[in-house]
Amino acid sequence: MQSYPAVTDFLRSGLFRWAGDANSFVGDSYIELVCSPNNPDGAIRDAVLSSGAGKAVHDLAYYWPQYTPITRRADHDIMLFTVSKSTGHAGTRIGWALVKDREVARRMTKFVELNTIGVSKDSQLRAAKVLSAVSDGYDGGASRHRLFDFGRRKMVERWRMLREAAAASGAFSLPEETSGRCNFANETAANNPAFAWLRCDREDVEDCAGFLRGHKILTRSGNQFGADPRYVRVSMLDRDDAYDIFISRLASLK
Amino acid sequence: MQSYPAVTDFLRSGLFRWAGDANSFVGDSYIELVCSPNNPDGAIRDAVLSSGAGKAVHDLAYYWPQYTPITRRADHDIMLFTVSKSTGHAGTRIGWALVKDREVARRMTKFVELNTIGVSKDSQLRAAKVLSAVSDGYDGGASRHRLFDFGRRKMVERWRMLREAAAASGAFSLPEETSGRCNFANETAANNPAFAWLRCDREDVEDCAGFLRGHKILTRSGNQFGADPRYVRVSMLDRDDAYDIFISRLASLK
Repeated sequence: MQSYPAVTDFLRSGLFRWAGDANSFVGDSYIELVCSPNNPDGAIRDAVLSSGAGKAVHDLAYYWPQYTPITRRADHDIMLFTVSKSTGHAGTRIGWALVKDREVARRMTKFVELNTIGVSKDSQLRAAKVLSAVSDGYDGGASRHRLFDFGRRKMVERWRMLREAAAASGAFSLPEETSGRCNFANETAANNPAFAWLRCDREDVEDCAGFLRGHKILTRSGNQFGADPRYVRVSMLDRDDAYDIFISRLASLK
Repeated sequence: MQSYPAVTDFLRSGLFRWAGDANSFVGDSYIELVCSPNNPDGAIRDAVLSSGAGKAVHDLAYYWPQYTPITRRADHDIMLFTVSKSTGHAGTRIGWALVKDREVARRMTKFVELNTIGVSKDSQLRAAKVLSAVSDGYDGGASRHRLFDFGRRKMVERWRMLREAAAASGAFSLPEETSGRCNFANETAANNPAFAWLRCDREDVEDCAGFLRGHKILTRSGNQFGADPRYVRVSMLDRDDAYDIFISRLASLK
């Protein structure tokens, strides 16, 4: 994710420095950040480095059934999660980690304590309430209270709308739909990423974000992710009314 | 405050390192942190260094009428505030700063953006609601809704109880009460710090925090603040029921 280099560079930590893309890294000592599903393109990623002295941190923020088939039980050494993407409560600023090594866990806890004087008690209470409501929905609760089923239906519908709008315009293309066996839903399910990685196919447009901005559609340019500026990242998680306006504007572009 | 060296040391920033007590600092380039009223002892502090290349950051977290007379309009270059101590909403993790230099303000904003991806929108809405309720109380609202008047009455009462309990025990002493002309309340008002800096006067007690812990009173030892362990810091801001138990336990100690 684009925020990683900014943070290490800004602090100029004596402990760590940003070393760029893991695919081109040479060395034994590193921390590899694996964002899976990936931001911005929703692809499932595996660590590309392996060394006894290196560590991989798996950011599983988007590994939830509304976004991607849950094809396997996650079992990495260090796994990060957040209520931001699972339930939409980004404002609580709450995440959690599953960590196998006790000493690594202790240092992560210490960092949280120093960086934010621990986690807000208000936020802990809110997050606990939210997560129990989600859990209760799957524990004999009414099916309309089942968050991930709701979320998946919503994401399937939005991706259908987006693919139709892109096809109607004739000027945009999207990653091909992939699917897999979801062990949570117990059925084959499509990948419905939280972001669309949209490409402008018009020959005369080199800056897709600028072109869309001219048509009142705000996106993040591919070059903010080290990619071709013909690509943009589109959030698929805005409110219904904003999403509907985005779709109608996109469909009308030739 | 004791958290400053921990944070700089933990990050091992290439930009800053903790240089210890400003009173013994030699050099021209520095950031001096001035906590006023001071934590733990509630004393009003001024910057002790002065250099064109140095900067002072005034932490005014406790500069509110319930804790201290507002004797002068604060007019420092960089001033930090927080709803944590002004209204008690620490869980929002919201503070604000008044900063004269535009470039310094820009860098502070950038740091907040990188460190916490901006400030939680939930928290901003809650803090705005809380601060308008406080402000409305002083803008023609009912006097029972005047937060700082309520807060000062509460703190005056708690300090009275604490001084009586310390006197009853005969084993503890407290800083002498100071007062000043408060321009907010428009009267002379006592200093009622959010923490009590309590000294155990018993000859046989060298570790006041340990002694109190043995009597089921939890405090922070003076040595956590670089001071004599005969001192402890006591929070004056716990709930009424917990505060009442603390007072009765303290009064019973000889």
